[in-house]
Amino acid sequence: RINGDRLWDALMEMAKIGPGVAGGNNRQTLTDADAEGRALFKTWCDEAGLSMGVDKMGTMFMTRPGTDPDALPVYVGSHLDTQPTGGKYDGVLGVLSALELVRTLNDLDIKTKHPIVVTNWTNEEGARFAPAMMASGVFAGELTLDYAYGRKDHEGKSFGDELKRIDWIGDEEVGARKMHAYYEYHIEQGPILEAEQKQIGVVTHCQGLWWLEFTLTGKEAHTGSTPMAMRVNAGLAMARILEMVQKVAMDAQPNAVGGVGQMVFKPNSRNVLPGTVTFTVDIRTVDQDKLDGMRAAIEKQAAEICADLGVGCSVEAVGHFDPVTFDPELVGNVREAAVELGYSHMDIVSGAGHDACWAAKVAPATMVMCPCVGGLSHNEAEEISKEWAVAGADVLLRAVLKTAEI
Amino acid sequence: RINGDRLWDALMEMAKIGPGVAGGNNRQTLTDADAEGRALFKTWCDEAGLSMGVDKMGTMFMTRPGTDPDALPVYVGSHLDTQPTGGKYDGVLGVLSALELVRTLNDLDIKTKHPIVVTNWTNEEGARFAPAMMASGVFAGELTLDYAYGRKDHEGKSFGDELKRIDWIGDEEVGARKMHAYYEYHIEQGPILEAEQKQIGVVTHCQGLWWLEFTLTGKEAHTGSTPMAMRVNAGLAMARILEMVQKVAMDAQPNAVGGVGQMVFKPNSRNVLPGTVTFTVDIRTVDQDKLDGMRAAIEKQAAEICADLGVGCSVEAVGHFDPVTFDPELVGNVREAAVELGYSHMDIVSGAGHDACWAAKVAPATMVMCPCVGGLSHNEAEEISKEWAVAGADVLLRAVLKTAEI
Ligand SMILES: NC(=O)NCCC(=O)O
Ligand SMILES: NC(=O)NCCC(=O)O
Repeated sequence: RINGDRLWDALMEMAKIGPGVAGGNNRQTLTDADAEGRALFKTWCDEAGLSMGVDKMGTMFMTRPGTDPDALPVYVGSHLDTQPTGGKYDGVLGVLSALELVRTLNDLDIKTKHPIVVTNWTNEEGARFAPAMMASGVFAGELTLDYAYGRKDHEGKSFGDELKRIDWIGDEEVGARKMHAYYEYHIEQGPILEAEQKQIGVVTHCQGLWWLEFTLTGKEAHTGSTPMAMRVNAGLAMARILEMVQKVAMDAQPNAVGGVGQMVFKPNSRNVLPGTVTFTVDIRTVDQDKLDGMRAAIEKQAAEICADLGVGCSVEAVGHFDPVTFDPELVGNVREAAVELGYSHMDIVSGAGHDACWAAKVAPATMVMCPCVGGLSHNEAEEISKEWAVAGADVLLRAVLKTAEI
Repeated sequence: RINGDRLWDALMEMAKIGPGVAGGNNRQTLTDADAEGRALFKTWCDEAGLSMGVDKMGTMFMTRPGTDPDALPVYVGSHLDTQPTGGKYDGVLGVLSALELVRTLNDLDIKTKHPIVVTNWTNEEGARFAPAMMASGVFAGELTLDYAYGRKDHEGKSFGDELKRIDWIGDEEVGARKMHAYYEYHIEQGPILEAEQKQIGVVTHCQGLWWLEFTLTGKEAHTGSTPMAMRVNAGLAMARILEMVQKVAMDAQPNAVGGVGQMVFKPNSRNVLPGTVTFTVDIRTVDQDKLDGMRAAIEKQAAEICADLGVGCSVEAVGHFDPVTFDPELVGNVREAAVELGYSHMDIVSGAGHDACWAAKVAPATMVMCPCVGGLSHNEAEEISKEWAVAGADVLLRAVLKTAEI
């Protein structure tokens, strides 16, 4: 079993870096706060005797050697970056539990056949630079390095420039490493485990996702002196599309979601009808056909809504992954570990995307989940109990050992 | 008749200050560009022999003396500030035509009984600091100086601090001046004059207005892992309110408008349902009862929409004026001037608010309008012809002389 106090202390230490405004964190990727978090994590890894490799996406690979020189490593990780108003556990719990796992093995002087690589993926959140899970996406060959480097934030700063600025471009080719397996431990970010009163989620699948970015072009005009009949109202078209996305998601129940997180009006002035309205739609479900059907329905109906109002409509897919089925053997290891440790558990589908979803493309992969209070995440009020955190980390340790072999 | 070339040259010179990104202007109130525009205007006024007074709202009063020491001045003006993506003529035409009027009187060595005061009101647009027509609102006793000083822009900078920063706080008490009459010349900002092929709009009324600022409070949550049934979706409530505002405006036809210009999602991240959505509603009509009925209908239905979704809803009125009836004698002067000069004309209701609407509270007031291409304003592509500009300025001169008396 891992050392729960040490894990919790590490979580609280990391949460001091990039504090939010309401008890959570704002440690967005490639900010100064991200650099500070990375430095602290590296210090801890150095102390644990891990050796560092960094790839050209800035992902940190911290290796504990194995006993068999020919055995590929088992990777265990998640991400240290957060949403602009994020919680203290989303991602961080997974990275620091992987570190805690290694610390525990050191304490007990346990050696494994396969090396263990504690991993901190760059830009999992995708809040500052879309898409999410960007470094693991490049690692899995789903995105190119050039594409990733060219992605821009709100202020027009590029991922590549910002990675250079915080001085975390490594020299490893992205994806050159071969994995024996990949494990990731994460908070559920949804309400199911808590409602079902289970300590451990055995993650069998992950929902697929489309992120669509709409740009609606209206006619910028005076709100007072432009008669209703003369308006080319991009704001109204947006409102109709939001209602339609809601309907598409409701029609796709059960187990499907759709919503809008980002919205920008230009020029965003009280007495000017917007010239352009840009917003993002996020749709997800675990069924591939349903997912593609939702996308098609949304694009078709959005085009009709805009045509009806004379508003220009363009759609760009800025993020996507297919539904994922995790490796049955690794999933079995997680389930067994929970049983052996006497923790209550259930099979679960991940509602959120994770680096594990991309890792699953290039290696056997799976995840462990613990509950979070009220299912709340991507909110500074995100909360978990120490007991929940520890149970998941114990299961992670035991499952990883099944694969890394003592 | 005024000197059309000189007027047009002045317009083009002023447009060089605070250039926009698409041929128009971004010379928002109390920015460095505003200060530069004021300085240029002052130079021209100095050359024309006008003496300057500035009040505590930063409004510039440039006086040409009259022959009768007891006669109150006739004020003629508008505003030099622009929208963030504004045109070259909105407001500027009125101020520079007032200046041109004085230059013409100087050329012809015509003296008037009443002094003439060329006026540049501070913050007419209200884009940076709501409400619009702020300085004339304080002048008319409709807003307090403290309220105005405390208004904040997007970045949290206050009107008072910014006025001090650009060094345009004068020492005159706001509203201490007494006006014999107030004239304002402005582009229509709507499509009617052009459609009716009239050179001059004789402005008899101005629409009343309510600016409502909505703050909707939802639950910030993950777009992927939060089931539809658990969402408290402020974005969806916003969409329904926009559609409802559109319906309220359509039901109030003819001669009523309603729309949304400003919209802010927080935290505005692709995979986070917004915790708060803030937006502004602008409703206008010339009928007092209809205007208040629209406001009541919107507030009532918005509360219902939000209650239905569990979303918190608060509404603040950040701008308001009642419909205005301009002074019949001054309106008659404008109509007569157009007839005498042989310009085609029609009576018109101002769709936009103007400083003249507040001036009308404390003095006889009216306006002259010229057409603008496609009715387009609050858009960098705003355009007028030199002929239109000149016709209106000629009418302004002649109407003002009827009141200022030679
Ligand atoms: N786990 C998580 O929040 N990942 C970010 C990508 C997503 O929106 O699912
Ligand atoms: N004329 C003008 O655009 N004034 C700004 C206030 C308004 O929105 O009517």
